[in-house]
Amino acid sequence: MTGLCHKKYLKLTPPTEEDSRSAQVRILDELSDITDPVQFSMKALRQLSSVCVNADWEITVSLSWDGCKWLITNLETGDTSSNLYGLAVDLGSTTVVMQLLDCISGKVLAQTSVRNHQRDKGLEILSRIFFSKDNPEHLEELRQLTLKSILEGMENLKKHTGIEVHQCGAMVISGNNAMIHFLVGLDPFPIFSSPYAVWADQLGFYPAQELGLPLSCPVYLVPARANYLGGDITSGLIDVNIQEKEQIQVFFDVGTNGELVIGNKDFLLCGAGAAGPALEGEAVRTGMRATAGAVTDVKLQKGAFLLSTVDNLPPVGICGSGIVDLLAELYLNGWVDNKGHFVPDMSEKIAWQPKEQEYAVCYSPGLWFYESDIQEFLKAKAAASTMVEILLQQMGLCIQDVETFYMAGAFGVHINKKSAVTIGMYPDIPLERIQQAGNSSLNGAAKLLLNRNLIDKIPKLLSMMTYLQFGAVENFLHEMVAATAIPHTNLENYPSVEAERKKRMEEQKFTAST
Amino acid sequence: MTGLCHKKYLKLTPPTEEDSRSAQVRILDELSDITDPVQFSMKALRQLSSVCVNADWEITVSLSWDGCKWLITNLETGDTSSNLYGLAVDLGSTTVVMQLLDCISGKVLAQTSVRNHQRDKGLEILSRIFFSKDNPEHLEELRQLTLKSILEGMENLKKHTGIEVHQCGAMVISGNNAMIHFLVGLDPFPIFSSPYAVWADQLGFYPAQELGLPLSCPVYLVPARANYLGGDITSGLIDVNIQEKEQIQVFFDVGTNGELVIGNKDFLLCGAGAAGPALEGEAVRTGMRATAGAVTDVKLQKGAFLLSTVDNLPPVGICGSGIVDLLAELYLNGWVDNKGHFVPDMSEKIAWQPKEQEYAVCYSPGLWFYESDIQEFLKAKAAASTMVEILLQQMGLCIQDVETFYMAGAFGVHINKKSAVTIGMYPDIPLERIQQAGNSSLNGAAKLLLNRNLIDKIPKLLSMMTYLQFGAVENFLHEMVAATAIPHTNLENYPSVEAERKKRMEEQKFTAST
Repeated sequence: MTGLCHKKYLKLTPPTEEDSRSAQVRILDELSDITDPVQFSMKALRQLSSVCVNADWEITVSLSWDGCKWLITNLETGDTSSNLYGLAVDLGSTTVVMQLLDCISGKVLAQTSVRNHQRDKGLEILSRIFFSKDNPEHLEELRQLTLKSILEGMENLKKHTGIEVHQCGAMVISGNNAMIHFLVGLDPFPIFSSPYAVWADQLGFYPAQELGLPLSCPVYLVPARANYLGGDITSGLIDVNIQEKEQIQVFFDVGTNGELVIGNKDFLLCGAGAAGPALEGEAVRTGMRATAGAVTDVKLQKGAFLLSTVDNLPPVGICGSGIVDLLAELYLNGWVDNKGHFVPDMSEKIAWQPKEQEYAVCYSPGLWFYESDIQEFLKAKAAASTMVEILLQQMGLCIQDVETFYMAGAFGVHINKKSAVTIGMYPDIPLERIQQAGNSSLNGAAKLLLNRNLIDKIPKLLSMMTYLQFGAVENFLHEMVAATAIPHTNLENYPSVEAERKKRMEEQKFTAST
Repeated sequence: MTGLCHKKYLKLTPPTEEDSRSAQVRILDELSDITDPVQFSMKALRQLSSVCVNADWEITVSLSWDGCKWLITNLETGDTSSNLYGLAVDLGSTTVVMQLLDCISGKVLAQTSVRNHQRDKGLEILSRIFFSKDNPEHLEELRQLTLKSILEGMENLKKHTGIEVHQCGAMVISGNNAMIHFLVGLDPFPIFSSPYAVWADQLGFYPAQELGLPLSCPVYLVPARANYLGGDITSGLIDVNIQEKEQIQVFFDVGTNGELVIGNKDFLLCGAGAAGPALEGEAVRTGMRATAGAVTDVKLQKGAFLLSTVDNLPPVGICGSGIVDLLAELYLNGWVDNKGHFVPDMSEKIAWQPKEQEYAVCYSPGLWFYESDIQEFLKAKAAASTMVEILLQQMGLCIQDVETFYMAGAFGVHINKKSAVTIGMYPDIPLERIQQAGNSSLNGAAKLLLNRNLIDKIPKLLSMMTYLQFGAVENFLHEMVAATAIPHTNLENYPSVEAERKKRMEEQKFTAST
């Protein structure tokens, strides 16, 4: 009984005058080897007469864990015990990603990614928060939009698999505090406002119906540690499990905001801060999300750009991973210096833009990457890398002490690790020690779904997490300024980058001289 | 934390940047001395922002036990901890009796008795059961009518006390299996049909909302032992507590049906059977329930009837306790013999009824009590007293071994104990050993409300109860025939009755001779 849901096929003996136990007791007696309490849901009670009789007393009982007991959530005729499904949900502010899992094999049967319809009321989380502030009707609108997204995801999963998703035996939802506040119908304003005390962060199990979801099972909402360290981070840690490792690990979930945890089985030091929208392809003139036609990979060879795009379509803009590649190639080839300024002599593709009054490089016909774009991006990467630097400093550690550096989130999945090291966004450590954790919030939710022992570990995990307010760190700003250079003002921390740059520059000289 | 509900007044410290725990955690931390798990209900979560801010963080938290954890069901501003209320409900097939309790003092603040609106669909339980059989819509009608009665009771209690009854912290409902099946929406047909295996008899705690009741707390539905030994009997035993006594006790709840438990801390032998409607004033031509104008007490002095009636109104009929009195007086004065036949010579009030072709006595102008009424009543009292006799025989006990004979139900409350002994309905033991337990189903529900340790004792109580099917007892019918005599064929078991009869007969001779 490790997972959050189970099914038991029971061949009950029909009642006789000698054994006139109730149908309820007949079932409970058959389940008496379960050590935790077992209780019928009202729905299952009401199914007793029709199901037991139709099935000639051979029935399948669905059991769902509700945090303190097994709830019998459904009765079915015959043996359906091999059909056991669960839903894992990453409730992201942009997209809601959902997996339908086979809870027996643990396999993902289907995954879907749907728009978070909260975006109708504001693309940025902050605009949604202001929309709902002191306005219960608007808050309710956002709650409904959140549900709409989840329902859409359920519908997709049903279409993909033909499985009646609303009959799932378990559901785990992880999301940041704002997403969970919106889902529950709580005002998220305090998340972003001093003293940053949210209303509720230890949600746990709730009946799906009370949340407004059309399932019969309880839904587990992953608890959070602090305002910016939401259930998505808890879930991510459950996935990468740095809290049980001997050696020091780094878990970094970076996007517009960055959440960071450094530690091992003995301690977890955490921080969170804004990195700005540049890392997600925003705040860059031709930047875009990684949708059709977005440049994802860039090579600069012999003065020419070699580009890859989403769906191999003609380039229409550049996404986060493309920007990192582009910037790394520009730097390695000497087209920009370590301050992020263009070196116009290096290529004809670098040209003065009279309208913008700055230099820019044409990376594809009609698509320009501006010096101010670079500066914006460097600020973001500096913020991100400084968070790591500061947390390590606080513990008296250096980057070489880190065994594995887990990059979570969409940014981590698509980025070229070597390019990220080149621009000083990732530390200069052997690339195999930098791991792309992917959607660790979703993966953690799936793991929780399949193993309730992990849920039992969450209170200890949260209590281990020490939250460092970056605002209270004296040298944060000083460190950040140093980190805006490419790869960093302290070049000795990036030996591989310097070696590669020298190599490239010499190749260019050789090419130029032949 | 003995009762099913509690309130805690908390003076919370408002959040600061140094202590930015969530509002939820601030409350849970204040409740950390509670050893059982504590969880917020969805309703209480959604109250957090408004209540905490409006109350300047001085709030009262309502806690309700749900069977495995304390559920925070409500938040209020300021200190309301002295207002703690609960509802105890006896869900009877004729009337629904409800008490509003002060859960701090344990006092009953108000009691109300409302019509069970199921009667719209049949005065007898059986007719309601046939109405709902194989007809989900009719079953739903009966469920709604059950709820209607409870809601009416709640409304009455609110009117009587001014207390917002829907804010009660706990509710306990006891009723027989048919009533609980109707309340939950389960088909009660198997209760009365071989092999007598009901659908569900171990209900326990359910959210009020799932039952359709407008409260925020869980509702406890008292578990049952067998088809005819419903939650009302479990609750009755919780009230009189014979299962913890050293000496042998009898608990008897008699009406149209009789449920009987005999035992002590070592064993409980139980039986149930039909006594017929005569004991409740039905099946007697001028019989009626104990409503306005019903004769409740009868004395026969110097050949004249002295009557008491409900509300002191002119007699319009006779109820169960009046019949017992009347029959006892007729017998003691020699107006009927021990077979229940009239002795017409004894009084001019006894007259042949040409239409009915039988004798009858005129107990009030225009009101006649017929010999066939007597026979009907004697069959019912014989059934009841034989149940006691048989259970005692099964254990090798006699009535003198019984320390206390608890008579539950309305019949027990109003009946004249001495008259009941005279007609052989009650055993001939010292009257102080016959105790009127009153509405023990309701009283037990109230005790469960105030003490959840009693709930923990119910599984053991149910497992102690051995259910004897009277149909399987060989000499039951033989014993019952012997018991139709007044007081019984074996007069040696009723020495006090015989002594009284002789005394009365001699008084009459003396009166007649002077």
